[in-house]
Amino acid sequence: MKQVFDYIDSVKDRSIEALKQLVRQPSVSATGQGIKECASLVAKMLENLGASPKILDVEKGGASPLVVGEIRSKMNPQKTLLFYNHYDVQPPEPLEQWESPPFEPRVSGGRVYGRGCADDKGELIGRLKLTEAFLEAWGDVPCNFKFLIEGEEETGSIHLEEYFKKYPESFKADSVVWEFGGINVEGRPMVTLGVKGILYVELVARNAKVDAHSSLAAIIDNPAWRLVAALNTIKKADKILVPGWYKDVRSFTKEEIELLKRAPSEEQAIKRNYGVKSFVNRARGLEVKKALAGKPTCNICGISSGYNGPGPKTVLPNEARAKIDFRLVPDQDPLDLLRKLKRHLNQGGFSDIEVTSIEHERASRTSPKQLISRAAIESAKQLYGPSRPPTVNISSAATGPMYLFDLPCIAIGGGHSESRNHAPNENLRIDQFIMGMKWVADTANLFASGTKE
Amino acid sequence: MKQVFDYIDSVKDRSIEALKQLVRQPSVSATGQGIKECASLVAKMLENLGASPKILDVEKGGASPLVVGEIRSKMNPQKTLLFYNHYDVQPPEPLEQWESPPFEPRVSGGRVYGRGCADDKGELIGRLKLTEAFLEAWGDVPCNFKFLIEGEEETGSIHLEEYFKKYPESFKADSVVWEFGGINVEGRPMVTLGVKGILYVELVARNAKVDAHSSLAAIIDNPAWRLVAALNTIKKADKILVPGWYKDVRSFTKEEIELLKRAPSEEQAIKRNYGVKSFVNRARGLEVKKALAGKPTCNICGISSGYNGPGPKTVLPNEARAKIDFRLVPDQDPLDLLRKLKRHLNQGGFSDIEVTSIEHERASRTSPKQLISRAAIESAKQLYGPSRPPTVNISSAATGPMYLFDLPCIAIGGGHSESRNHAPNENLRIDQFIMGMKWVADTANLFASGTKE
Repeated sequence: MKQVFDYIDSVKDRSIEALKQLVRQPSVSATGQGIKECASLVAKMLENLGASPKILDVEKGGASPLVVGEIRSKMNPQKTLLFYNHYDVQPPEPLEQWESPPFEPRVSGGRVYGRGCADDKGELIGRLKLTEAFLEAWGDVPCNFKFLIEGEEETGSIHLEEYFKKYPESFKADSVVWEFGGINVEGRPMVTLGVKGILYVELVARNAKVDAHSSLAAIIDNPAWRLVAALNTIKKADKILVPGWYKDVRSFTKEEIELLKRAPSEEQAIKRNYGVKSFVNRARGLEVKKALAGKPTCNICGISSGYNGPGPKTVLPNEARAKIDFRLVPDQDPLDLLRKLKRHLNQGGFSDIEVTSIEHERASRTSPKQLISRAAIESAKQLYGPSRPPTVNISSAATGPMYLFDLPCIAIGGGHSESRNHAPNENLRIDQFIMGMKWVADTANLFASGTKE
Repeated sequence: MKQVFDYIDSVKDRSIEALKQLVRQPSVSATGQGIKECASLVAKMLENLGASPKILDVEKGGASPLVVGEIRSKMNPQKTLLFYNHYDVQPPEPLEQWESPPFEPRVSGGRVYGRGCADDKGELIGRLKLTEAFLEAWGDVPCNFKFLIEGEEETGSIHLEEYFKKYPESFKADSVVWEFGGINVEGRPMVTLGVKGILYVELVARNAKVDAHSSLAAIIDNPAWRLVAALNTIKKADKILVPGWYKDVRSFTKEEIELLKRAPSEEQAIKRNYGVKSFVNRARGLEVKKALAGKPTCNICGISSGYNGPGPKTVLPNEARAKIDFRLVPDQDPLDLLRKLKRHLNQGGFSDIEVTSIEHERASRTSPKQLISRAAIESAKQLYGPSRPPTVNISSAATGPMYLFDLPCIAIGGGHSESRNHAPNENLRIDQFIMGMKWVADTANLFASGTKE
């Protein structure tokens, strides 16, 4: 791998230039700004690499194009590694908090600043550049490399399933390297093996056709009370009361428990950042890690009804709404749970409550025993050295469309913990940008040459 | 009374002019517009009547002046009747829905249009003009007449209790004629004998110092769930679960039940107006009347937490709020109930929920056997004739500061059911304006000459 690493080091400035070029092209999926132009630019970069790009579309209006490409390996054409990335970025607002314009990338203090530098254009360029390194140093890649680069990750990957159905070949591989990763707050490389799923619903209770004076509460039912009563049948303390909710929950393996024990604790940092003294159920230590990685949750994201301005207003509202997100774990099925939720409300006498599904994704979790997991961990040990041993996160508490691939999938890369993703002054540490390329390249090589357990 | 009634008829145009003069002076307590000027104008009108007006104040900044006056009776100085009215009005918005400017009164189709025509400047002028009629026709009033005219009725009479404490003499009388009344939707005169009380509170649940990503719901408690759970311990179906809530509730007397049975039903009109098919507990007939007149209620006026815009946002809010109004009946004590509510939440494990009282007033209910009640009913029978027999409403479902006077009190007047109080194109029917003066005058005379049961 020495020649590959040397090449990566030697083209550092060109890699930074390529990143700056990509950041200069706005690509805000929330507004559509620059999306088509950015897809073309990414395709051109794949073209220059020799990766036979295609710009795919689905017929639904407004879907961002999906850019795919592939480089076949001569030495190892039986195995394929897919890199999942995205070219879209979060909106740059609030603009006044940026120290330099978000789409005019700037290098300062060993970092590149600009919207998308970290999430996800840095990772995307990294994967193109490490591929170039293999091709230049070896004249080949260690196995087939596939690129799948979407333009709607920041708006919930809402058309990715349609792309999957229309172009299933583009999603096929032996394993996947996910779009994010890097070093944690302690500087240790972190391998993330999964994400939680989600079922996001809206509950609406209605009664009268208009708001009424609250003196009529003596005779007219209040939908806010209906909603409160219905919600209260869904969850008590931290238990979800919908029958069968936990039926398909996959237990942690012994190995996963060991990994959780060894993972660094985020307990104090979260308590400090959010100013909370204790956690749900007074959880501490391993319980906190288990909850973040593998506990199904039910969270009120929003609730509203009636008058919420200053002072008293005596109104009986005619509608009440709640937005709820359930985080799911393997092997829960969001559509099955949606049915169970509706049945639960109906059977509890709340058939008047309207339930609408807004978003749903399954969870995904890759075994640490998988070849791609072992490759990433082993590579991190070698590259980062004994002072910064890798940490394995068996599942992020957050959600992403990993489940669509239905493949072993790991999240590693060149990020760091102060990169300010989604916020002003987003940035990428150049040393980690380069380090991340080497780590992913080495992982790909170990994966390509390794055998299943 | 014939001379008095003849005088009222003969000065009809001057009464309308006086009303128009008063409506021309804006007096919006919500914004303060014209309040001081209107108080002076009302005092000048009392002065012209010979009622020795005083413009009172309390030291609290921003309190509207209270205007009081009195005319002593030569023939019957042992008995005093107090007229409670208000000179302030609701804001005129939305202006574009008025057919003529709200503070430029206009006569059309037998009605006077303008903000405050009905609520409450028409009643106020009516009481001054009927007093003038007694003085011109008889050279005396049938008993002492007291006037208490406040400027904050439309903003919850928030300083009236302070006025009461500072100027208790101004609130003393034998009975009170309340500020509103008139004919119902069937054209029958309605005598209202009471109002419900209110306890308006805000409940606030808090946890983290900032909102969090909803993936942290696995470990950070959500205050919206806390609030929902706490609310659910306060009410179930239509029962308030706070221990002791119903302890002081005064039962209906047999006579009150009889009056309820005889009162016209609002059931179909309310169902039609609000588009509801059935009422709380499927109440019908007498149950609806009993609920409106005498059932303690607990109503969510507003609830809010987190994100309530379009689409999904995965947030764990750090605060949740609910505004609740409890309508009270005789003899419930709002401050006692506030203590009980707080104790209930504390004992139920919700000491983290902050409870703030925003407004509280006791209920008030006058017996139909009281002299003033009998006078109003008897007078209505005579004046409106057998085709329009009076109806007795033992309590309005709404709330007002009647309890402060702690006196027999009835609400009668010259209003009608389409006067659009608080809304654009507020209006007063001139025939009812004149009829209401005669009714109140005759009631005052019967009250003055009558004896207690």
